[in-house]
Amino acid sequence: MVLSKKLDIHSHILPKEWPDLKQRYGYGGWVHMDHSCNMKGRATMMKDGKFFREVEENCWSAEARIRDMDRDGITVQALSTVPVMFSYWAKPEDTLDLSRIVNNDLAATCAKYPDRFVGLGTLPMQAPELAVQEMKRCVGELGFPGFQIGSHVGDWNLDAKELYPIYKTAQDLGACLFVHPWDMQMGGRQSKFWMPWLVGMPAETATAICSLLMGGVLKRFPKLKVCFAHGGGAFPYTAARIQHGYKVRPDLCATDCDQPPLDFLGKFWTDSLVHDPDALTLLLDVVGEDRVMLGTDYPFPLGEVKIVDTWPGKTIQACHISNAIKDKLFWSNAMQFLNLDPTQY
Amino acid sequence: MVLSKKLDIHSHILPKEWPDLKQRYGYGGWVHMDHSCNMKGRATMMKDGKFFREVEENCWSAEARIRDMDRDGITVQALSTVPVMFSYWAKPEDTLDLSRIVNNDLAATCAKYPDRFVGLGTLPMQAPELAVQEMKRCVGELGFPGFQIGSHVGDWNLDAKELYPIYKTAQDLGACLFVHPWDMQMGGRQSKFWMPWLVGMPAETATAICSLLMGGVLKRFPKLKVCFAHGGGAFPYTAARIQHGYKVRPDLCATDCDQPPLDFLGKFWTDSLVHDPDALTLLLDVVGEDRVMLGTDYPFPLGEVKIVDTWPGKTIQACHISNAIKDKLFWSNAMQFLNLDPTQY
Repeated sequence: MVLSKKLDIHSHILPKEWPDLKQRYGYGGWVHMDHSCNMKGRATMMKDGKFFREVEENCWSAEARIRDMDRDGITVQALSTVPVMFSYWAKPEDTLDLSRIVNNDLAATCAKYPDRFVGLGTLPMQAPELAVQEMKRCVGELGFPGFQIGSHVGDWNLDAKELYPIYKTAQDLGACLFVHPWDMQMGGRQSKFWMPWLVGMPAETATAICSLLMGGVLKRFPKLKVCFAHGGGAFPYTAARIQHGYKVRPDLCATDCDQPPLDFLGKFWTDSLVHDPDALTLLLDVVGEDRVMLGTDYPFPLGEVKIVDTWPGKTIQACHISNAIKDKLFWSNAMQFLNLDPTQY
Repeated sequence: MVLSKKLDIHSHILPKEWPDLKQRYGYGGWVHMDHSCNMKGRATMMKDGKFFREVEENCWSAEARIRDMDRDGITVQALSTVPVMFSYWAKPEDTLDLSRIVNNDLAATCAKYPDRFVGLGTLPMQAPELAVQEMKRCVGELGFPGFQIGSHVGDWNLDAKELYPIYKTAQDLGACLFVHPWDMQMGGRQSKFWMPWLVGMPAETATAICSLLMGGVLKRFPKLKVCFAHGGGAFPYTAARIQHGYKVRPDLCATDCDQPPLDFLGKFWTDSLVHDPDALTLLLDVVGEDRVMLGTDYPFPLGEVKIVDTWPGKTIQACHISNAIKDKLFWSNAMQFLNLDPTQY
């Protein structure tokens, strides 16, 4: 058992409540938190008036989270919003306004418990100039080390040139980006067996990684720090297929970047959320022992949270790697990614 | 170097030519092979009059294939059509007719070189009663050991109850099914970097595996022999996520099968086409050393074919496994899957 400090790079939080967004912006499609059921410690997330997900107190209460963190041996959580809140589909100024509400709430939680939480803000990605403005505010005024962004933005994959100002700003500010899959195909053949989460999310993340690598984003912004959720989705197992594809069909794959995708291994991070020590071993072989960080998806049940026979850090703990490497995954890789001073925690 | 016999479970072949299908059936959407460029040994596959893919002689000529097989040390190829020929979208009787054309051509090739080729037929999957009829003909009259089917059929995933008669017939006949991804999303965010092949196909295969497992197909048809292409797509790396999802959200995942998905490991096969020994190691850990078979995707460049720095069997050869296990992957697992007598080859 390693008694390392542990930072969880992948945990989600919401404000306890926020304004009625339909009323505030004049149109629907928004999420709101319904506490009306009066069940202590429970609430319902409603999207456009329809049930989306039931959540518990640890989804909004810093104190409930700290109780769980103490129980589970988690020193610090990097807090990010729930992807359904991204709202990249809305009018840019409304998404900016909502981002400010979410980010200010996040900052207040971090300020209250500065040795337990750091904030990864949310941005109006569909309007890069507004996103840049909010990035500067979040880093300069709220002290965030980085941001959570979606795996795509409307019709743009992450290689869209429109997003370059965001990458440049992140690089200039030394702010990191945590890429979370979202907006998966929900209906049709994906409507059963939780497919959007079990198959769609890993595919989304593989699409995002391929876009950043073959789109030349990591070449153009060499100091950009990007982490992908869920152990890089489907990418690590299919990396050699992707590399081979790049080699044999440069007409399709080498259009935007003259370096093959696997040249960029070691240049990006993933979390550790693969639920299996053998899969984690492959992930470490692919992206490197300096590039994987504990991620749990707390407080949601698909994550590595205390539920059924799982608990945060179980997969890293069970992996056949040295304690020195485990310490990197639990703690020091995240200190580097987030540019934090480990003595402050 | 193992001097094992080698059977390639994943290779594609087409007839050299076939009737004008638009004329034959009275509507478009079909593939035809255009030999008009008069370049010896080359032809162009056209889909509905538009360029689809350039192919070489080894795509239709048994003799050209045998030359390559002799060079590459491949004893036997299991031959299947190119998925674009599935034509599940067409009128059932037309797909049946085309399946007969393709299957008869396949059978002629196998009959000419019975110690080098075995046939995996194609079926009008959208009309299960016609598919069953063609299955019986292919097994009884043409001597096929099994069939190649698509990862979905129109709006049906492979758990669709409509497909049960096909599974029952396969089980009763002892015929195996080789599942190949096809009909991926092509446009929009998937239009660059060969995404449908590099990300879409692995996701298609993961969808197909999830459907068969959580849909209870392998429970209902316990003797059904199914193999998935490309090392199981994204499934092996995400298997533990899928299992965890089943456990924590039985309301979504356990609707059709009361056994968790990983209970069925060891019950299905994959090919070895992952291009990387570490990925192959994970695959063997997940599905088992008796359930992986050499597959190359010959003669296409995304496969493990003699191109760039790759050759058929390279990944198995480079994997840190015993020669006994390599022999299983190269040969004996396929003998069992296809129910062949190894002394005949």
